[in-house]
Amino acid sequence: VKVNVGLVGFGVIGGGVVSLLQRHAEVLKLRSGVEINLKRIADVDLERPREVSVERSLMTTDFNEIIADPEIDIVLELVGGTGIAKRVVVSALEANKHVVTANKALLHAFKEELFRLSVKQKRELRYEASVAGGIPIIKVITESLAGDRIHAMYGIVNGTTNFILTKMIQEQWSFEDALSTAQDLGFAEADPTLDVNGGDATHKLDILATIAFNAQVASDRIYTEGIQALDLKDVLYAKELGYVVKLLAIGKQADEHMSLRVHPTLIPEQCSLASVSNEFNAIMLQSEFLGDSLYVGRGAGAHPTASAVVSDLCDLALSIASNQEFNPHRYSPFNEYTTRSHLEDESRFYLRLATIERPGILAVITKILGDHDISISAIIQKELSGTASEQTIPIVILTRPAREGNLRQAVTEIDALDVTCGKTVILHVEDIEL
Amino acid sequence: VKVNVGLVGFGVIGGGVVSLLQRHAEVLKLRSGVEINLKRIADVDLERPREVSVERSLMTTDFNEIIADPEIDIVLELVGGTGIAKRVVVSALEANKHVVTANKALLHAFKEELFRLSVKQKRELRYEASVAGGIPIIKVITESLAGDRIHAMYGIVNGTTNFILTKMIQEQWSFEDALSTAQDLGFAEADPTLDVNGGDATHKLDILATIAFNAQVASDRIYTEGIQALDLKDVLYAKELGYVVKLLAIGKQADEHMSLRVHPTLIPEQCSLASVSNEFNAIMLQSEFLGDSLYVGRGAGAHPTASAVVSDLCDLALSIASNQEFNPHRYSPFNEYTTRSHLEDESRFYLRLATIERPGILAVITKILGDHDISISAIIQKELSGTASEQTIPIVILTRPAREGNLRQAVTEIDALDVTCGKTVILHVEDIEL
Repeated sequence: VKVNVGLVGFGVIGGGVVSLLQRHAEVLKLRSGVEINLKRIADVDLERPREVSVERSLMTTDFNEIIADPEIDIVLELVGGTGIAKRVVVSALEANKHVVTANKALLHAFKEELFRLSVKQKRELRYEASVAGGIPIIKVITESLAGDRIHAMYGIVNGTTNFILTKMIQEQWSFEDALSTAQDLGFAEADPTLDVNGGDATHKLDILATIAFNAQVASDRIYTEGIQALDLKDVLYAKELGYVVKLLAIGKQADEHMSLRVHPTLIPEQCSLASVSNEFNAIMLQSEFLGDSLYVGRGAGAHPTASAVVSDLCDLALSIASNQEFNPHRYSPFNEYTTRSHLEDESRFYLRLATIERPGILAVITKILGDHDISISAIIQKELSGTASEQTIPIVILTRPAREGNLRQAVTEIDALDVTCGKTVILHVEDIEL
Repeated sequence: VKVNVGLVGFGVIGGGVVSLLQRHAEVLKLRSGVEINLKRIADVDLERPREVSVERSLMTTDFNEIIADPEIDIVLELVGGTGIAKRVVVSALEANKHVVTANKALLHAFKEELFRLSVKQKRELRYEASVAGGIPIIKVITESLAGDRIHAMYGIVNGTTNFILTKMIQEQWSFEDALSTAQDLGFAEADPTLDVNGGDATHKLDILATIAFNAQVASDRIYTEGIQALDLKDVLYAKELGYVVKLLAIGKQADEHMSLRVHPTLIPEQCSLASVSNEFNAIMLQSEFLGDSLYVGRGAGAHPTASAVVSDLCDLALSIASNQEFNPHRYSPFNEYTTRSHLEDESRFYLRLATIERPGILAVITKILGDHDISISAIIQKELSGTASEQTIPIVILTRPAREGNLRQAVTEIDALDVTCGKTVILHVEDIEL
């Protein structure tokens, strides 16, 4: 059986996919019995230098030629963005073609609409590469855990911020130095805003939560905090306490509630997630029957992403070759959850505050915390720091689990004391075991 | 659509599967559109206490009633062993039913025969639960990496030995103490031979290598070394050098060769694999496009195993519901590799030898190593140890990559010196990065 594929978008990722298909055509056929034939490639720029060369006759600047080709069964959308990419996906589905995309921004913005269209047209829309690059997390959640129930997930889903945090932790670099090195090495874009402010991780959490919890996610309800304001001091105090700071995308589900958050988080240094370094991504799932499970790999780059795109492509090619009928259930969220405010969640917290030296200060602070039902599990009081004229005493506190609303109220009161200086730093703590 | 399932073997794992199907029937139907109906359960013992209760009318002591029932589409073989289990699988396939098994011993012994029968009958034989319990490693290798090429894999695939090693590393217990605690906690069987001697890991490596390298594996060619002779001293010296000792199942493929080994291995303490502790399993894959990826989870237990069994069951149920035709390629190894002897492999090594005190000993030993083309990357010479009458000096050496045959020849010469006492301890080192 031969399956014809049209590729739209022949950039870095597209080049990786073409390279994989060229180099592994034989093994793909032996493994699946299907010949995957890359029939046509569309890109606005036919001239730019690429990782692989293809026959010029395969190429076109007009993606509509691919849509209009009745022999093409599957369209790969690797344009990126939400403009042309959306037109490609919509017109391909409308032309009764299956679609594979690596486009998280597109899914974040339009997944309900696109899933509905996929069901209406009875054509698949696959997106393994859209979250965590080469890690097969979409398949794990939708197929391997199809019979299980996921309670919580913790993801390192942004390679740029994980690289920056690794350098802060291991090399004691400031955020700014780590970011500029990441840019030099190509792990951060010229404008890194959407990475460092947590926006990119939020888009991915949105997609993961949709499938893990079978729910529609109102992604503006995801509490998001980036690492742009993270102080090296806090990374180092965390280390002293046996914790590593990671930007985590966290999704939890209990009763009728779903809680979705992206923020820098202290996790125990001995857990496997803590050792996921540099540009690597990882997702930990907690499910009822399997328990804790962890998936680690490269979250970006042409080749890892190509691996995920081709995995989708193989699934669809096999499905075409074996005359499988379309099953709409994959694309139909059926749970109705309320999205709970992060203020309602219970969590442990890391607090760092600065006080002026005066007897009984710790008693005042711990009383305020106690009044808000917050217990302390660890405390470090440091020697005086700062210039002679404005010396302050840094106090670092780890709390036991507390309601976030209470914690923030207590901190507001602490910050209003005339013995505290500046705003207390608040970071979340998650006691991950695996 | 309703799919009828017959379960043969209602023990601990079977109980987990029934529990999952009972508790998640609704969500399974919502996710897949298929109703999975557990129609009949066969077990020799209908009376023993179980995790779940089922209607007595579903149960029988004769598995042939399941095989003979034309309405049953899928048979779950959860008997274990290679006797009755084989008869169940063979007769189910011959009766044109799909089969799901969790039985690694059966696959190890008969997979070629059973895969051939599966292809002949055009019925699926799925076995996700047979390796690493709930970790979806079979699906990852056969589906997610279908377009990639795996060069190497490193697996912690035996929970018993990983538990024992964790206690030796973290608590400095001897092998014997750790084993007896593992037995008390139910992580080791009364007769732990097949776990501690590496046999169980070898069976799993056999299955993993078959699918990762698309090859027939002559499993008697797998070099196997257990942990039963592992000395706590070596675990602690390894730690001093920044390494953790794990029992790894290692498969590598290059050119026309496949190298398959199971042995205690030093891996860097900061890699993610090193932090996989206690009864957890993990498999790290190195593939051409995805690069390094790691999969961690519970490798045994009723619930994690049930999760894997039901994942196979859902795949088959969906495939039945969507009228998918059978694809034989999944079960057809096409690569012809020679299995290379471990003596031909290159690796780094850990050596511990005991010498009597005499000037120039280190020079003699390092000369012998040098003569066999073995360079040293680290060395620790300790103070005198032992009773006054037989004091020896322990010397610990880490080598650079060397051919194993050369290393063993050099060690034979070193052990024959009259200044060395006893046999030199040899352990493999793998510089895993992820």
